[in-house]
Amino acid sequence: MAPHGDKSDATEEALVSEAEKRPISTILLVIAMQTEALPVVNKFNLSEDPDSVFPNGVPWVRYHGSYKDLQINLVWPGKDSSLGVDCVGTVSASLVTYASIQALQPDLIINAGTAGGFKAKGACIGDVYLACDVAYHDRRIPIPVFDLYGVGLRQACASPNLQKELNLKVGKLSTGNSLDMSPQDEASIIANDATIKDMEGAAVAYVADLLKVPIIFVKAVTDIVDGEKPTAEEFLKNLAAVTAALEEKVTQVIDFINGKCLSDL
Amino acid sequence: MAPHGDKSDATEEALVSEAEKRPISTILLVIAMQTEALPVVNKFNLSEDPDSVFPNGVPWVRYHGSYKDLQINLVWPGKDSSLGVDCVGTVSASLVTYASIQALQPDLIINAGTAGGFKAKGACIGDVYLACDVAYHDRRIPIPVFDLYGVGLRQACASPNLQKELNLKVGKLSTGNSLDMSPQDEASIIANDATIKDMEGAAVAYVADLLKVPIIFVKAVTDIVDGEKPTAEEFLKNLAAVTAALEEKVTQVIDFINGKCLSDL
Repeated sequence: MAPHGDKSDATEEALVSEAEKRPISTILLVIAMQTEALPVVNKFNLSEDPDSVFPNGVPWVRYHGSYKDLQINLVWPGKDSSLGVDCVGTVSASLVTYASIQALQPDLIINAGTAGGFKAKGACIGDVYLACDVAYHDRRIPIPVFDLYGVGLRQACASPNLQKELNLKVGKLSTGNSLDMSPQDEASIIANDATIKDMEGAAVAYVADLLKVPIIFVKAVTDIVDGEKPTAEEFLKNLAAVTAALEEKVTQVIDFINGKCLSDL
Repeated sequence: MAPHGDKSDATEEALVSEAEKRPISTILLVIAMQTEALPVVNKFNLSEDPDSVFPNGVPWVRYHGSYKDLQINLVWPGKDSSLGVDCVGTVSASLVTYASIQALQPDLIINAGTAGGFKAKGACIGDVYLACDVAYHDRRIPIPVFDLYGVGLRQACASPNLQKELNLKVGKLSTGNSLDMSPQDEASIIANDATIKDMEGAAVAYVADLLKVPIIFVKAVTDIVDGEKPTAEEFLKNLAAVTAALEEKVTQVIDFINGKCLSDL
């Protein structure tokens, strides 16, 4: 077979560059918990899809609607069919992101949700962050190169104007499947130089990168990881109030995005 | 809307029961590493798919071929496009399993690969296990019910005849995204009563359960987790020899499956 890698790369770059100059039309919000999703669903009057774009049997839920010049899709991994709790964590988030990209071909993904924050890095309860990059803190593979794969560093879509206009804090996000933080997690989070910690971001970023969809992260701080209070208690106590702050910022982000191209963000 | 849950459930049960009495035709082998996959690919003379059933850009690889009465598909998540190492771990495994089920509608999934073993539970280097059930050890969510979701216990398809005929060891499998084992991981592995430890099984099982495809696990022990030698060193030293043992057992499993129904396993 003749080598054609360079040509494909050039074509791909041209397509990406063209997409950056076209107004963003279809956005995909990926949100892990119903409590985080519903304020946004209500705010934009999104309706649940009667004919799911997803296969039979999966709990994943899509809400959608039009807002100004945008087609808004919000997906939530739904509730575990036997246990009834939200399907949090990296596996569900990656699957619903993959299936949604395949079905909806979005121009931009917004992974929104709550996060733990590190006061040592300046985070306070209720802060809403734009994550500039994201990595894992619970994939330790101490073999050369596999160690880097485990960290899985991915970049968010550059959005300096969005950050400035909305006066959002910017920090690095670290992802793991546990709500708590073991000493090993902590060492990796420090190595990741993270200000905030969640349970999905790096997995959503991985899929977005795999399928070449730009992504931004909007994360609201529910609990201080390096504080005195136990994470689970603080998380549950602040969840409702902080999701209101999250909804407000997500609304501002969507208003900012409307009519703009990727290169304007 | 009229309630129809019971009717759907009854229809689904009837379909499942019918499937159990039909000879297994299409099998899907999910294998995380190229080194583990290639001996099986060569043994069954499988060929790589020139027109991928997967989307553009993903590194996932499908090999396929006919063997006796079976259509064999072997999928491997491929190599990370920038780092060049195998895409190990739960996120890649869940994605390639999901996409493969959608594209190939297999009757049975076989998740085959290497694993760490616990000598305290009787495991030795080179042992090949059938996992009876599988759970996560790195998803700690200390909130009631979410804790059980985090553990994510799933059952393998019952296969007493297969186990007896091939004289395979049977044990519980615990999955996490790290090659090493932190004290928190160890506590969860003990709680899971696991004999073997891998980096994909529970995620493959989750997707199989979501899409109602029966699954079995064939795992060969490359390293003793509760032994003296560092896991990474022992894993790399034994990988080639143990994948030969794995290929031999996978071949026996496939020979056993040929012509049988799920209920005969």
